[in-house]
Amino acid sequence: MEFTIQQIAAMLGGEIKGSTSDKINMLAKIQDAKKGQIAFLSNPKYEQYIYTTQATAVIVKKDFVPRKEVTSVLILVEDPYSSFTTLLEQYHKLLTFQKTGIEQPSFIGERCITGANVYRGAFSYIGNNVSIGNNVKIYPHVFIGVDVIYGDNTVLHAYVKLYAGTRVGRNCTIHAGTVIGSDGFGFAPQEDGSYKTIPQLGNVIIEDDVAIGANTVIDCATMMGDSTIIRQGVKLDNLIQIAHNVEVGKNTVIAAQAGISGSSKVGENCMIAGQVGIAGHLVIANQTSIGAQAGVPKSITKEGQKLLGYPVIDIKEYFRSYAVFKQLPDLNYRLRDLEKKIQQLNHSTEKSVSVDN
Amino acid sequence: MEFTIQQIAAMLGGEIKGSTSDKINMLAKIQDAKKGQIAFLSNPKYEQYIYTTQATAVIVKKDFVPRKEVTSVLILVEDPYSSFTTLLEQYHKLLTFQKTGIEQPSFIGERCITGANVYRGAFSYIGNNVSIGNNVKIYPHVFIGVDVIYGDNTVLHAYVKLYAGTRVGRNCTIHAGTVIGSDGFGFAPQEDGSYKTIPQLGNVIIEDDVAIGANTVIDCATMMGDSTIIRQGVKLDNLIQIAHNVEVGKNTVIAAQAGISGSSKVGENCMIAGQVGIAGHLVIANQTSIGAQAGVPKSITKEGQKLLGYPVIDIKEYFRSYAVFKQLPDLNYRLRDLEKKIQQLNHSTEKSVSVDN
Amino acid sequence: MEFTIQQIAAMLGGEIKGSTSDKINMLAKIQDAKKGQIAFLSNPKYEQYIYTTQATAVIVKKDFVPRKEVTSVLILVEDPYSSFTTLLEQYHKLLTFQKTGIEQPSFIGERCITGANVYRGAFSYIGNNVSIGNNVKIYPHVFIGVDVIYGDNTVLHAYVKLYAGTRVGRNCTIHAGTVIGSDGFGFAPQEDGSYKTIPQLGNVIIEDDVAIGANTVIDCATMMGDSTIIRQGVKLDNLIQIAHNVEVGKNTVIAAQAGISGSSKVGENCMIAGQVGIAGHLVIANQTSIGAQAGVPKSITKEGQKLLGYPVIDIKEYFRSYAVFKQLPDLNYRLRDLEKKIQQLNHSTEKSVSVDN
Repeated sequence: MEFTIQQIAAMLGGEIKGSTSDKINMLAKIQDAKKGQIAFLSNPKYEQYIYTTQATAVIVKKDFVPRKEVTSVLILVEDPYSSFTTLLEQYHKLLTFQKTGIEQPSFIGERCITGANVYRGAFSYIGNNVSIGNNVKIYPHVFIGVDVIYGDNTVLHAYVKLYAGTRVGRNCTIHAGTVIGSDGFGFAPQEDGSYKTIPQLGNVIIEDDVAIGANTVIDCATMMGDSTIIRQGVKLDNLIQIAHNVEVGKNTVIAAQAGISGSSKVGENCMIAGQVGIAGHLVIANQTSIGAQAGVPKSITKEGQKLLGYPVIDIKEYFRSYAVFKQLPDLNYRLRDLEKKIQQLNHSTEKSVSVDN
Repeated sequence: MEFTIQQIAAMLGGEIKGSTSDKINMLAKIQDAKKGQIAFLSNPKYEQYIYTTQATAVIVKKDFVPRKEVTSVLILVEDPYSSFTTLLEQYHKLLTFQKTGIEQPSFIGERCITGANVYRGAFSYIGNNVSIGNNVKIYPHVFIGVDVIYGDNTVLHAYVKLYAGTRVGRNCTIHAGTVIGSDGFGFAPQEDGSYKTIPQLGNVIIEDDVAIGANTVIDCATMMGDSTIIRQGVKLDNLIQIAHNVEVGKNTVIAAQAGISGSSKVGENCMIAGQVGIAGHLVIANQTSIGAQAGVPKSITKEGQKLLGYPVIDIKEYFRSYAVFKQLPDLNYRLRDLEKKIQQLNHSTEKSVSVDN
Repeated sequence: MEFTIQQIAAMLGGEIKGSTSDKINMLAKIQDAKKGQIAFLSNPKYEQYIYTTQATAVIVKKDFVPRKEVTSVLILVEDPYSSFTTLLEQYHKLLTFQKTGIEQPSFIGERCITGANVYRGAFSYIGNNVSIGNNVKIYPHVFIGVDVIYGDNTVLHAYVKLYAGTRVGRNCTIHAGTVIGSDGFGFAPQEDGSYKTIPQLGNVIIEDDVAIGANTVIDCATMMGDSTIIRQGVKLDNLIQIAHNVEVGKNTVIAAQAGISGSSKVGENCMIAGQVGIAGHLVIANQTSIGAQAGVPKSITKEGQKLLGYPVIDIKEYFRSYAVFKQLPDLNYRLRDLEKKIQQLNHSTEKSVSVDN
C-alpha cells in the first residue's frame, strides 16, 4: 500500500507545505520515522524531533511555525493526533479487509447464505443453515456450527468457534482461539457422589460493535430459548470466562482473565479489571468499577462505585485497611504491650487504692 | 426432529389428555412456549401460565386438576420436572449424536482402529496407531496425536488437541480448544541463569464420564510411564490449568480458571471454585471445598473442610477476620488512643502513688 | 526406536558389564522397568530395586559394587542421573523431530522461503512472505499470517497462531492453542459512553530459546514499528496473558495463568508464580520473585526481592501479617476488653486521686 502526500492530505482535509508527489508507505513515531513514512507532531515537547526526523511527511497543527529548517513535507491540519489516528484506522482497515474470496480447501454446509465481499480462509468450516453478512472475514480454521447468523463487517480470526445457534451482530471482531457457545457448567449431584450432566440447550447472542480477545470462552445458556448475552459495544479482553446465562451490559469493558459466573447480570459502562471474579446469580449496577483480582460474592446495587478486595469493598477503604494489614504484627505487639501495662496499672492502682484505705 | 405427543408420552410412560397426534419440535418454559412446543408444570406458583400458554402440550403431575380451561394437551406423569429433564437429555443426545460418517478433507494415519457410528469432521487430523471406540464424535479441526486410545460415546469438539499417548475413557465430552498432553513446565536452572528444558515424556489419562470445558489445558507427566490422571466422573470447567503429574480424584468438580500445580493430588468429591490456585506437590483431602480465588500453599489433610483466603483458612473464620480487616484503620486509631490513655494513666498513677508515699 | 546397549553405552561414554547386543526401546524408573527398558541407579536408597528390577540395562556409578546378584546389564558412568537425562533428551528429540515433509492438504502462500528438514502438517496454513528456518516443525492446524519470520529448530504445535508480522527466534517451542500477535486491548472512551477501537499495528518478537505453553496469548504492540518482546530464554507456562507492548526480560520464568498488563517491562531472571497479576506501565526489577496470586500495582525498583499479597509486600512480612489477620476477631475482642479496663482504671484512678486530695 502506497499513497502520495496529495492523497493523504485530501483524506485529512489538510494543506501541504512542500512536494505533493512523494510516496508514503507507512506510519511511524516522529522520533523513529524513516524515508517513505509519515509522522505527526502534536505535543510541543516533541518539537525538537521535527528538525531531525527522516520522515517524508509530518502532520502538524495549522498554526505551527518551525523555528529551524524542516526537511520533511508538512501537512497542516486542525488536530494532528486525531488526523494521525484516522490514517491508522484507514491503514488498519486496508490491512484487515484486503482479503476477499474463498481459499481452498474449505467446507460449507447446505442452505447457507453469504453476503458480498466475504473472505473464507482455507480450512474454515461452516455448518448447515448459516447466514453471513457482507464484508465478513472468516479466517482459516474458523468453525461455525449449524444455524448461526452473523452480521456485516464482522471479523472471525483463526480457530474462532461459534457453536450451533450462535448469533453475532455487525462490526464485531473476535480474536483467535475464542470459543462461543460451549456447554455451561451444569451438573446435578447424585446420591452416590457422582454428577449427572444437565443438558445445555440455549445459545449465545453477541450484539453489534463487540470486540472479543483471544482464547476467551462464552458458554451457552442452559434452557432452549434462553441466551447468554453480550450487549452492544462491549469489549472483552483475552482468556475471559463468561458462564451460562450471563448478561454483560452495553459498553462494559472487561480485562484479561476475569471470570463471570453463571446467571450474573453485569450492568452498562462497567469496568472490570484483570483476573476479577464475579460469583453466580448476582446483579452488578451500572458504572461499577472493579479493581484487579477482586472478588465479588454479592450483588452491587449502588451505581458508580470503585471496588477492590475479596469480598470487594470501597477501593480507598481497601488500601487504608491494607496499609494497617502490613503493620499487623506490630499492632499485635503493641496490643500485648498495652495488656501488660494495664495489668501492671491495675496492680498498682489496687495497691494504691489499698494503701489509701 | 419432530415427535407426536403419542411418541413423547410413550417415552415418559405418561397418560395423554387430548389429541395424541399433534407434533412437537421443541421444548420451552411454560411462560414462553409457542405452538409446536412442549412445556412442563411442576411448581404450583407457575400454575397461572397453564391457562394462557400456547404450548401444544404440557407435562403435569398425575393428580393435576385444572381450575380453568386449558387449551394444551396434557401429559400426566409422576414427576413432571424429572420427565422434562429426560426429554431435554433425549433432545440433546439427538442434537449431539445425529452426525456420523466422515467429512472430507480429513486426515487419518496408519494402523488406526475406529468403532461403529463414528463421526469424523472435515479437517480433523488423526495420527498413527490411534484406537477409537463406538459412537465417537470427532468435530472438525480436532487433532489426535499418535498412539492415542479413547472410548465409546466420547465427544471431542473443534480444536481439541490430544497429544501423543493420551488415553481418554468412555462417555467423555471435551469442549473446543482444550489441550491435553502438552509439555509440563519443567526447566532446570543453569549456572549462567538460563534454563535447560526437562523433557516431558509421560502422558495424560482421562477416565470414564469426565466432562472438560473449553480452552482448558492438561499437561502430560514428566517421566515415561507416569501419567497426569483425571479420575472417573470429574467435571472440569473452562480455562483450567492442570499441571504435570497432577491427579484429580473421582467426582471432583473444578470451576473455571482454577489452576492445580505440578504433582498435586486432589481428593475425591472435592469442590474447587473459580480462580482457585493450588501449589505443587500437595495432597488435598476428600470432600474439601475451596472458595473462589483462594490459594492453597500447603496440603489439606482433614476431610470435608470449607476453606477460603490465601493461604486458605476455614471459610467462616476468613469472613470473620475480613470483617475486622475492613475496620483496621479504626482499630489502629483505637489502639493509639489507648496507648495515649495508658500513658496518661501511668503518669497519674505514678503521681498518685508518689503522693501516697 | 530401538538401540543396542552397545550404542547407548557409546552415546554415554560408559563401560558395559554384561551382554552388549541386547535391545532397548524405552526408559523407565528402576522400580517400574520391564524387559527391553533401561533404568538408572543414583540415589543409594533405591539400591534394593537393582536386585529385583526386570530392566534389561541399568546405568550405575563407575564405582558401584553389587552386594547380590544382578540380572540386568550394567552401564558404568560418572554420573548416572545426568546420563539418564541425556538419554531422555535424545529420546525426546527423536520423538519430536522424527517427522519431516509435507502432509496434504496444507496451504502455503506466495513468496515463502522454507529451510531444510521442515515438517508441515496437514491443514497447516502459511500466508504470503513467510520465512521459515531449518528443522522447523509446523504441526497440523498451525496458522501463520503474512510476513512472519522464524528460526531454526522451532516447533509450533497444533493451533498455534502467529498473526501477521510476528518474529520467532531459534530453538523455540510453542504449545497448542497459543495465540501470538492478537490485537492489544486498546479502546478510547467516547462522550456517549461507547468506545472507539485504537488500531493495533505493531508486532510480537520472540527471541531464541523461548518456550511457551498451551493456550497462552501474547498481544501485538500498538504502534507500527513497536513490538511486544519476549527475550531470550524466557519460559512461559499455559494460559498466560501478555498484553501489548510488554517486554519480558531474558531468562524470566512465568507460571500458568499469570497476566502482565500493557507496556510493563519485566526484568531478567524473574520468577512470576501462577495467577499473578501485574498492572500496566510498570517496571519490575531483575531477579524479582512474585508468589502465587499476588498483585503488583506499582513498579518494583529494588532487585532480588521475594514478594506476595495485593499489593505485593515482602513475602515474610505477608505471612507474618496474615498470621495476625487470622486472629483479627480475637484482636478486636482484646482491644475492646482493654478499652473497658482503661475506662474502669480511669474511673478508679480518678477516685483514687480524688481520695488522695
